[in-house]
Amino acid sequence: MKLVPLKLVTIIAIDALEQKIISDIKQCGSKGYTISEVEGEGIHSKHFSDWEGRNIKIETLVKEEVANKILEIISSKYFGKFSIVCFLSTVEVLRPEKFE
Amino acid sequence: MKLVPLKLVTIIAIDALEQKIISDIKQCGSKGYTISEVEGEGIHSKHFSDWEGRNIKIETLVKEEVANKILEIISSKYFGKFSIVCFLSTVEVLRPEKFE
Amino acid sequence: MKLVPLKLVTIIAIDALEQKIISDIKQCGSKGYTISEVEGEGIHSKHFSDWEGRNIKIETLVKEEVANKILEIISSKYFGKFSIVCFLSTVEVLRPEKFE
Repeated sequence: MKLVPLKLVTIIAIDALEQKIISDIKQCGSKGYTISEVEGEGIHSKHFSDWEGRNIKIETLVKEEVANKILEIISSKYFGKFSIVCFLSTVEVLRPEKFE
Repeated sequence: MKLVPLKLVTIIAIDALEQKIISDIKQCGSKGYTISEVEGEGIHSKHFSDWEGRNIKIETLVKEEVANKILEIISSKYFGKFSIVCFLSTVEVLRPEKFE
Repeated sequence: MKLVPLKLVTIIAIDALEQKIISDIKQCGSKGYTISEVEGEGIHSKHFSDWEGRNIKIETLVKEEVANKILEIISSKYFGKFSIVCFLSTVEVLRPEKFE
């Protein structure tokens, strides 16, 4: 049994960005992710005040350097144009080999 | 790109409390939240042993002072009367301005 | 109002393992858990490349000694045979008595 610290990156966005964001995180080096549907308020800018679709939460476990690349790409591609929330935390992962 | 530590407050409760809790966290200063459906065991007291409805997980990213207000209100309004679980962790948030 | 640090153990696995894992975490001492459906990529080994079912995310709040037992059982029973992801983080829990 082995525990290794990795970054859990969480991205909350409108459903329409799902495939773009998945492509982005893979390009940054992510080997896996989960997606779940969420409802909510507060992630939409005024431009999206008439948005009625799903929101999604994408989570991926990655090394710090991959996390930094993801933050960089999310920040440069989406911020200011799309409503998106992105945060990360450090978690201890069992059998981390598959994420490296 | 800028990362700022914020508190991620997670509340797990029965579906029936959804609107009350959303109102509470907004009153405390939360600017956004997500809600997802969860199944589970262990959050219901004996009073709710016949409960068959949904459980919900509410998550909100807030500053520490807002987190403390939320904990205070959850504790005083629901504990002892309703089955509810509430916990918080510190996360690093990209573009935190919208949560401030 | 009282906050106590506990471990949040997150397990992501194929739907088919749901009842086995719930039984395992209860045997380790978990008093409660939530389950949510997730989609995703990257948790399936080659043996499951044709898997089309749901994935689930199981979360449980436990003391460190219970978390260690859960990691041990997940590691020994499932790793190498099933695709499963398990990680933990430390969170601050309000009214932790019910988890002790």
